[in-house]
Amino acid sequence: MPTARTKVRRKPDRARYERQTVYDILDQAFVCHVAFIADSMPFVVPTNYVRVGDKLYLHGSPASRLMKALSSGAPFSLSVTLLDGIVFSPTAMGHSVNYRSVVIIGQAEVLHDPDAKMNAMRDFVEYVARGRWATVRPPTPQEIAATMILAVPLVEASAKIRTGFAVDSDAEYASGAWTGVLPFKWTPGEPIRDPRGNPSAAVPENILHYSRPQ
Amino acid sequence: MPTARTKVRRKPDRARYERQTVYDILDQAFVCHVAFIADSMPFVVPTNYVRVGDKLYLHGSPASRLMKALSSGAPFSLSVTLLDGIVFSPTAMGHSVNYRSVVIIGQAEVLHDPDAKMNAMRDFVEYVARGRWATVRPPTPQEIAATMILAVPLVEASAKIRTGFAVDSDAEYASGAWTGVLPFKWTPGEPIRDPRGNPSAAVPENILHYSRPQ
Repeated sequence: MPTARTKVRRKPDRARYERQTVYDILDQAFVCHVAFIADSMPFVVPTNYVRVGDKLYLHGSPASRLMKALSSGAPFSLSVTLLDGIVFSPTAMGHSVNYRSVVIIGQAEVLHDPDAKMNAMRDFVEYVARGRWATVRPPTPQEIAATMILAVPLVEASAKIRTGFAVDSDAEYASGAWTGVLPFKWTPGEPIRDPRGNPSAAVPENILHYSRPQ
Repeated sequence: MPTARTKVRRKPDRARYERQTVYDILDQAFVCHVAFIADSMPFVVPTNYVRVGDKLYLHGSPASRLMKALSSGAPFSLSVTLLDGIVFSPTAMGHSVNYRSVVIIGQAEVLHDPDAKMNAMRDFVEYVARGRWATVRPPTPQEIAATMILAVPLVEASAKIRTGFAVDSDAEYASGAWTGVLPFKWTPGEPIRDPRGNPSAAVPENILHYSRPQ
């Protein structure tokens, strides 16, 4: 999976190229940051995505700068980062973060077929919460036509993972400061009912006890 | 604060340009994504930062691709995104996310003065947990020299914020599906003690009851 462009250069011991590792990180996160060039300037835009097999789908308005740049076939880079913890070291410079990140370099393909676009829309909604698609009004042909959907083949992708404690020498630990890891998670709270919603609709199980693999 | 380059084009009703709004979002997040151009390709790299006054500091190895690109004075773009919730709509297309994001476009200045670099290092450690700096071994002159620190003036910055429920027409709400918002937070867990650490050091209050403004 690594190419000259996706080979991890900094801290190569943290690099992971196994396809399943890349997929697992993508499937646990929700937002990616896409970098692209417009008017000779580098831009970065946060956006949603869904992974289906060996492809990542992005969607948006055809009028957006992001969709315009990516649909032109110009190369781009995309990153997903899960922050897992803060690493407390006995030294100032030894502090770090535990994380799992993926970087993808690619070129996007525009989906034109309405059935393929409808399938990708379903995948987006099902990624929000499994089972949701069957409960909501599906997109109309007009909505499908007004939405640009891009497929990014996961060909050039690499992951980087840091776990564990600080890596200072044993001598540094004599300082006496508390050291360890403070883990973090992206945690759901209590669902908040939409005042315009159906007052007799119970909160579905997949929203009440929302979970993603962690 | 908005310029032609940072003016929000998509969903301009979500745009915020007040300096304090931008600062608040930066001060609650922990990781930014930086986009830059290297070998004519757009790259995106996650990295830590700290805001001090009207500047953002980044740090890294002078050998990293990110630091090389930014220290050359080349323009770059940087984004911080806080995902606050998932918005459940009665329609497939109406699903959305609540978020607060900042985009900064800038040019970085390399810090050369060792005292200025030491101050920035202290700011990084204090951003990890307030009071931490006084408890750990400060950087040596060699560590200071081996670390590149960049200052990014917060001149071109804009924020984008989505809050609230779905915005579908009242007619769509007849569908009967549960609708609402599932809020999310980046939540600390139980501190995990480093087995090499001082066994008699209690977990400091600022780590045991870690909090960032939310």
